[in-house]
Amino acid sequence: MKTKTTTFFDLVRPDLLEVEARMRISPSQHHPSLDKVIDYLLSSGGKRIRPILVLLTSGMLGADRDESINLAASIEMLHTATLVHDDLIDGSKLRRGIPTLNAKWGPGATVLTGDYIFARAAHLASTIGSKELMEIYARTLMTIVNGEISQLFNTLIVDPQQEYYGRIYAKTASLFEVSTEGAAILSGSKGEVIKAMKSFGYHIGIAFQIVDDVLDFISEQEQVGKPVANDLRRGLITLPVLYYSEANPDGDKLIEELQQGEMDDQGIERLINAIRASDAIKQTLEQADRFVSAGEEMLDGMPATPQKEALHELAHYVVKRTI
Amino acid sequence: MKTKTTTFFDLVRPDLLEVEARMRISPSQHHPSLDKVIDYLLSSGGKRIRPILVLLTSGMLGADRDESINLAASIEMLHTATLVHDDLIDGSKLRRGIPTLNAKWGPGATVLTGDYIFARAAHLASTIGSKELMEIYARTLMTIVNGEISQLFNTLIVDPQQEYYGRIYAKTASLFEVSTEGAAILSGSKGEVIKAMKSFGYHIGIAFQIVDDVLDFISEQEQVGKPVANDLRRGLITLPVLYYSEANPDGDKLIEELQQGEMDDQGIERLINAIRASDAIKQTLEQADRFVSAGEEMLDGMPATPQKEALHELAHYVVKRTI
Repeated sequence: MKTKTTTFFDLVRPDLLEVEARMRISPSQHHPSLDKVIDYLLSSGGKRIRPILVLLTSGMLGADRDESINLAASIEMLHTATLVHDDLIDGSKLRRGIPTLNAKWGPGATVLTGDYIFARAAHLASTIGSKELMEIYARTLMTIVNGEISQLFNTLIVDPQQEYYGRIYAKTASLFEVSTEGAAILSGSKGEVIKAMKSFGYHIGIAFQIVDDVLDFISEQEQVGKPVANDLRRGLITLPVLYYSEANPDGDKLIEELQQGEMDDQGIERLINAIRASDAIKQTLEQADRFVSAGEEMLDGMPATPQKEALHELAHYVVKRTI
Repeated sequence: MKTKTTTFFDLVRPDLLEVEARMRISPSQHHPSLDKVIDYLLSSGGKRIRPILVLLTSGMLGADRDESINLAASIEMLHTATLVHDDLIDGSKLRRGIPTLNAKWGPGATVLTGDYIFARAAHLASTIGSKELMEIYARTLMTIVNGEISQLFNTLIVDPQQEYYGRIYAKTASLFEVSTEGAAILSGSKGEVIKAMKSFGYHIGIAFQIVDDVLDFISEQEQVGKPVANDLRRGLITLPVLYYSEANPDGDKLIEELQQGEMDDQGIERLINAIRASDAIKQTLEQADRFVSAGEEMLDGMPATPQKEALHELAHYVVKRTI
């Protein structure tokens, strides 16, 4: 499997290095601390899966290399900016095992750094000069932020599964979608190709987040850089919890208690162990597989290129990864 | 004077109503609370001076009405978003005399609402479809945020006047500049016209902020909605303080004490009263006048239209206003 994941990565390695470089170039004079902090944020890892999606789709459909690199860099910057603000909102002290900006510098600098990175993302996108792309791009930011606001306001949840898919669409799949859709737009492809690639991004994005939510349950702290079942501890109900509750006679009551924040720490610990020991994890991974398969179908009519094969590999990696 | 200010406003009233409407139209589905909060923020006043600058410049140079309205709405949204985040950074409880979002809702919702308004601003700008404009626009956001970061990091100040002008450029003049420059770009004007209108916006913006800083000293709390000499109390050194210190034998020591935050409350009160009684206020207003005059010179070669006259009136209003 190691070889497999290396393959799709290898195909974009030179372009990805250029993406890394462009994320670090500032188009304007700024305070020297900003270079340091942006470097700190960008060096802290991340799989660069969104840029890879852009680059592979662009390569497959023959989009301009330079524009694709700018789009890839812009999308990763946008993603980074939202993470910076997220850490402030959550009050997280760690991300990927290293201290968050908020923990290091406090809220003021965190808000501003996120804003600055938004501006850099917008600037990178603007250099492409596509009205259609800019519109979709701005809409995606609205979707992401609106998802977080809905979560914050803890609206009455009628259908927890629907709420879950809406939330992970906003949080993750929307930016995957714009990665593949945006690259297809850059290539000047026909509407149906753009639509298919958008759908590919959507399905892979949903699968990616479902797997993330599984990893939150099954990984140990050292691997994910945060406590196990961090989501549940923060009152966030993910798919493993929903499947567990469905198979449980007291499931509805369980969900309600979690939503109301009525479960004590001991109850949470018992629940985490019960979910880990149950079939819910397996069921959740099967659901992720279904999304990946639906996504892969979208590649059917695409040009037979090494990039197309790599997109299939990337789709498999999304569900097979352990971190 | 009342009649004068009404004149330039009257000329853009119908378009300004359309700007107000477009700022409130959401291009995507979102949480219902967002409508309420955006309406709350937009209804809390503001002089709409940036949209007026866009509309008058567009009218004078013959830019497309629809695009101009979108640019005006976009710039005011961008301005609003930065204010929302500012209130969080400052910890301000009031703005324009009404509770800030941060005081009402807390930091999480404040960050996200600001982000959402940024996205809306970007979306409005993207509908215009000008690559040049989008680039300048993204750069302006970088300038604004970088200015705030520099302030937050309290970098060693070598030349306090230079620091002051750099700060008020980032804070205010940069967005005035993009208002007039952007409208000139939309009109398809020649490079020299765009440059002149950019310079007009710059000079009027600097004058506007200088007057704001004077009003902070001379107004009573009821008028500005915050305590008198709020800036100085927060350790922010503005032009009246700089002129006062220049005329004072202990001026350098005074500035140093303020920069280091070494002055006690009694000292601050004494200083505020001394500045209010000194010539510094008059000197500062004279400096604002000089910026307005330099700005007005830029209008010399512009088409003789009612909008041109209105821009002159607006320039005078900037220094004559009392709120």
